[in-house]
Amino acid sequence: MKQNGELQQILDLAASIEALDSKAMQAARERQEQLTKPAGSLGRLEELAIQLAGISGQARPQIKQKAVIVMAADHGVTAEGVSAYPAEVTPQMVYNFLYGGAAINALARQAGARIAVVDVGVASQLEHPGLISKKIADGTQNMAQGPAMSSEQMVRAIEVGREVFQQQLAQGCDLVATGEMGIGNTTASSALTAVLLHAPVAQITGRGTGIDDRQLQHKIEVIERAIAINRPDEQQPLDVLMKVGGLEIAGLVGVILEAAAQRRAILIDGFISGAAALIAVKLNPRVKDYLIAGHVSVEQGHRVLLEHLGLRPLLNLELRLGEGTGAVLAMSIVESALSVHNEMSTFAEAGVSERAETAEMEER
Amino acid sequence: MKQNGELQQILDLAASIEALDSKAMQAARERQEQLTKPAGSLGRLEELAIQLAGISGQARPQIKQKAVIVMAADHGVTAEGVSAYPAEVTPQMVYNFLYGGAAINALARQAGARIAVVDVGVASQLEHPGLISKKIADGTQNMAQGPAMSSEQMVRAIEVGREVFQQQLAQGCDLVATGEMGIGNTTASSALTAVLLHAPVAQITGRGTGIDDRQLQHKIEVIERAIAINRPDEQQPLDVLMKVGGLEIAGLVGVILEAAAQRRAILIDGFISGAAALIAVKLNPRVKDYLIAGHVSVEQGHRVLLEHLGLRPLLNLELRLGEGTGAVLAMSIVESALSVHNEMSTFAEAGVSERAETAEMEER
Repeated sequence: MKQNGELQQILDLAASIEALDSKAMQAARERQEQLTKPAGSLGRLEELAIQLAGISGQARPQIKQKAVIVMAADHGVTAEGVSAYPAEVTPQMVYNFLYGGAAINALARQAGARIAVVDVGVASQLEHPGLISKKIADGTQNMAQGPAMSSEQMVRAIEVGREVFQQQLAQGCDLVATGEMGIGNTTASSALTAVLLHAPVAQITGRGTGIDDRQLQHKIEVIERAIAINRPDEQQPLDVLMKVGGLEIAGLVGVILEAAAQRRAILIDGFISGAAALIAVKLNPRVKDYLIAGHVSVEQGHRVLLEHLGLRPLLNLELRLGEGTGAVLAMSIVESALSVHNEMSTFAEAGVSERAETAEMEER
Repeated sequence: MKQNGELQQILDLAASIEALDSKAMQAARERQEQLTKPAGSLGRLEELAIQLAGISGQARPQIKQKAVIVMAADHGVTAEGVSAYPAEVTPQMVYNFLYGGAAINALARQAGARIAVVDVGVASQLEHPGLISKKIADGTQNMAQGPAMSSEQMVRAIEVGREVFQQQLAQGCDLVATGEMGIGNTTASSALTAVLLHAPVAQITGRGTGIDDRQLQHKIEVIERAIAINRPDEQQPLDVLMKVGGLEIAGLVGVILEAAAQRRAILIDGFISGAAALIAVKLNPRVKDYLIAGHVSVEQGHRVLLEHLGLRPLLNLELRLGEGTGAVLAMSIVESALSVHNEMSTFAEAGVSERAETAEMEER
């Protein structure tokens, strides 16, 4: 992959991402110890509050506004017959998002989150006043025959993600969830993950929207062929993204990098969002500290990917839909962690006895 | 345990609990198949929607009002030094609930649920206009020396639970969460569970609010002694409850039986609530169909108990606080399941293509 100025800008953005604020985290940790509950008894909720303190730099962080960014694009590799659904479902589902009838709409309403629906590469003309139109190409090229996109297209897709996050931030956004739509995108995500984790394709490849054993075997072969033909350089995450990724995945890389650079918490959805997170973390391991894994999906590569990243999912509800559904479902857990952190009384305020000292215990 | 009229009433109530409405469940299942997502791709959310249809008898069930019932009582067995916290923490925490400063208050506010705080056996005078005062005794007797309560006390505590749920129902309650407070109540729950599951006490006993290895060994010995002295009849769940249970646990048995009899969904919190659910299910296995396990706690007996009941927890966030916290956290998941079920478009409504037939797939 040839280096150029715009590519360097992305690498610079990634490099600029800062460590969490350890002072705010320490203050949050001390507050947790004073709240009227046995130390550690709220488990993951305590960890979340401390992480959000580190991200925001506030000892008592708040989430006022939330958004889910749904990036949509098509995949040339669907020509190989890797999905249970035809490619025309991508634009149909984008309209479904815009008319409010998809799962992500119901869940975002329930969570009180805005939805930003972005066309970053759907292979049809889409028109709707609510759509953020940023089409870079009519889908990717078929990665089983050559690179999915050009270096320029990849850079532009990442820039789209950055811009869309900046727009959300301008409206107020303390927590962003990643979502996507693109028939064929578990194929791209499996390819990306297999290369970057140096793992066998069969270990990382699942049934997507629901293919059978024979179709799964075919999907694995297509991915192996794409990797063999493109020879992505696993030392260069953006080379891998360009050759076997997708435009919506590149867009999500941009969302994640920009949100981390702006010190905002990022709720990662399932396997496709996870693949975007993996690329961002490979660009700078500090990105990981800004990520919250919303859930672990049924798609088998996702668990492997999360373990590699050292991210523990908040939910395991056997979802495999994407769109951002698992991330948006987890928003209430994140908000609950802050409700507890910010609203509970301390032992002193409530006049509750702290745990007995060991010496006292022994006398009893 | 001698049989009497009131005891028989409880057994009759349990026996009266009806099977789920299979027609409503079938209608809900058919609707799920028509929604714009691959079949099964919303996993546990789909199951929840179908279960709630069966409970409510409505193909498109709704949750309008939610409540958590927090039953508080003391335990005579704390005289044996089984807890990391002194018994006076029970009344202190009840006041904390009433003043709104505890974890359950923050979480219930976040979830939009009412809290009913019930004194069913706290060993101190409590006065507060918000308290539901139904004290039956100043805590249980020390079960390491004899039965925790009399048959009459147990029956009255179950009746308190029934009454409190009926009051909630009168105000509107489509989803009830179980909560509790009582220093020493993991000891009672371990005893109940070990007897009813016929399991070794050591396998079912954990660290509660946070005891060390030596104290854990002591706690196990106290429970073994309580079982040896009382010889509860594992064929009679109410005999076990009376001898090694607790007043708040009996209260929750009443809540669960009444809610199931009234066809309302019950969100079960952690180990103590789970022990109450176990007794209710032993009285009538149909109770299980009305239960949703909110989470699995760190307390090791809880996982064993849930597996025995065949309940899969919605959350695993390493909580071990009780109060109803894990159940109330899970409320948003249950509500999200219904948002999806009720609000999503069908394939026909949205003009989205369904999955390709296998024949078509093969041509591609």
